[in-house]
Amino acid sequence: MSGISDVARRAGVSKATASRALTGHGYVSPDTRARVQDAARALGYVASSNAASLVTGRTRTIGVIMPYLNRWFFAEVLEGIQDALLEHGLDLTLYDARPGSHGRRLIFEDFLARKRFDGLIAVGLEPEDRELERLVAVGRPTVSVVGVGADSSAITLDDDAAARRAAEHLLALGHRRIAFLGGDPHDHWADVDRRRLDGYMRAMTDAGLAHEVCHIPSAVTMPGGYAAAVDLLSDASRRPTGLVGVCDEVAIGAIIAARRLGILVPGDLSVVGIDDHEFAEMFALTTLAQDPRAQGAEAVRVLLDHITDPGAAPVELQLQARLIVRSSTAPVDRASSAIEANTGRR
Amino acid sequence: MSGISDVARRAGVSKATASRALTGHGYVSPDTRARVQDAARALGYVASSNAASLVTGRTRTIGVIMPYLNRWFFAEVLEGIQDALLEHGLDLTLYDARPGSHGRRLIFEDFLARKRFDGLIAVGLEPEDRELERLVAVGRPTVSVVGVGADSSAITLDDDAAARRAAEHLLALGHRRIAFLGGDPHDHWADVDRRRLDGYMRAMTDAGLAHEVCHIPSAVTMPGGYAAAVDLLSDASRRPTGLVGVCDEVAIGAIIAARRLGILVPGDLSVVGIDDHEFAEMFALTTLAQDPRAQGAEAVRVLLDHITDPGAAPVELQLQARLIVRSSTAPVDRASSAIEANTGRR
Repeated sequence: MSGISDVARRAGVSKATASRALTGHGYVSPDTRARVQDAARALGYVASSNAASLVTGRTRTIGVIMPYLNRWFFAEVLEGIQDALLEHGLDLTLYDARPGSHGRRLIFEDFLARKRFDGLIAVGLEPEDRELERLVAVGRPTVSVVGVGADSSAITLDDDAAARRAAEHLLALGHRRIAFLGGDPHDHWADVDRRRLDGYMRAMTDAGLAHEVCHIPSAVTMPGGYAAAVDLLSDASRRPTGLVGVCDEVAIGAIIAARRLGILVPGDLSVVGIDDHEFAEMFALTTLAQDPRAQGAEAVRVLLDHITDPGAAPVELQLQARLIVRSSTAPVDRASSAIEANTGRR
Repeated sequence: MSGISDVARRAGVSKATASRALTGHGYVSPDTRARVQDAARALGYVASSNAASLVTGRTRTIGVIMPYLNRWFFAEVLEGIQDALLEHGLDLTLYDARPGSHGRRLIFEDFLARKRFDGLIAVGLEPEDRELERLVAVGRPTVSVVGVGADSSAITLDDDAAARRAAEHLLALGHRRIAFLGGDPHDHWADVDRRRLDGYMRAMTDAGLAHEVCHIPSAVTMPGGYAAAVDLLSDASRRPTGLVGVCDEVAIGAIIAARRLGILVPGDLSVVGIDDHEFAEMFALTTLAQDPRAQGAEAVRVLLDHITDPGAAPVELQLQARLIVRSSTAPVDRASSAIEANTGRR
């Protein structure tokens, strides 16, 4: 009986591509699909109706390691992963590795080494040096979502571009005094936060406003953004007319802070985020939208390709955020902006 | 070599109690602990340093089934479960069973029947009739958090009492026109929402205010509470002076709605929630606090008892919420309340 390898060879594609063409999971071009289907017919190959049979591992389990469960992005990615795994008849074993926690140490020292999974999806993981060694030593196919991979496949947002576009949206509305809110270099400074800060700085520098660059650190949570924004916005000498939040949660915290202080959004302050969080609509937040649920599903697709075809080269998918304009941003009020500038900021 | 059964018999306690006394996981009285330790010494029994070895199952995995991952309560319970399982060297397999989803159907029809776990924790699960049959048929020890158990152990909040105390707090501040916000009898009406509505209604009835009972349905989310509160509060003829939110997320949605409408909290409107959500402090929300992380840890403790000692009777732990008074509640403004009452509410 012909196997998937024979079909792949006859069609001149990889086994992973042949699997995708025959199961309908994941993208292949119409031409390739037709060629694979022809080859399968010619060889009398019948694709299993259960795509899980393509998985050569024996645990029928995929491990998912992530640093937070109770933040919107991570919960959405996890739901996307779970939905995709259910469709393939695979179990999801969860490793919740909060930075600095005792549990994280146990996961890296003990749980991963047991290899009770056919593959691993690492979400937003920024392993410290010794953790990275252990991750590589596991020797199972691994896909990263956000975070860094150890020579493995990765699904990432183009964070630099997303933040740059957020800042450019405010610049196009005439804003000059634009601050970047969120992330803290001295406390779990995530690489994603750093990349977003870089994108904002690049937009400001390209606009000739390098001297206006201003990073206000905060915890990357709604209460974190709120607390930092209360402090910033209540000080008239420092108050910007535009704010780029490192993510929507921080941006929404800033909007709540502005309302508490009687500062009108967008009349006195424009705010833009990155995410399209489930609360974004409620706060009329302009944002650079990403789709974490789809990222989780895509990570599963790539991981199953690697499990089916262990020799496949790592892939890196970099996604672009889409600008959604709601009512938290507006053209700068040049009059009030000029007055404030004259009354002694800096 | 003596086993844990011999120790338990000699000390006159159950195997589960003997395990707890020797491993330090879970509560036993000092007297019992001393008796078990004496018995162990007398028999030359050495407790394994790895508590997981007490678990008789062979998968070393605990299944967790929950309807939502992206709500605060569920994420917190999950982190509590994960932390406790890590300490026992056990894996966590996650089943995300969103009401009405295709994935939920797969979980109940296929995944649970595979029994790839030594025990199951069902969080906030309200299985339909046929689902309940399948859950019982799994035949593995099960512990519920919230939701109903099928003759199994359960960790629950006394929801009725929590909502009653929330309403009584407003009554004690002089409020009479108190509405209950959240939960929808026509859309995934959870038993926990119904129990909380009952508690509110009981408080109102006991105060002779049965004619003031008013339930405003909403989705049990922050945007759900926001949308329903915008509609309610913008109608002066219906506006209450006090609101009990079915949970903090709904209560916070109402506070955001009030601010948008220029209604002062607590000057014009007092709001109380149930949870002590991570945002409660930021919104100065008075609430009936529960500790979902501890509930998750407790569910693990009870489940491991059942796995160690399959004959143990089911236990039901009902926890009481604690009132935390912040600045979202205040004595009713009797003057403005009377004026509104005279201008034709209802």
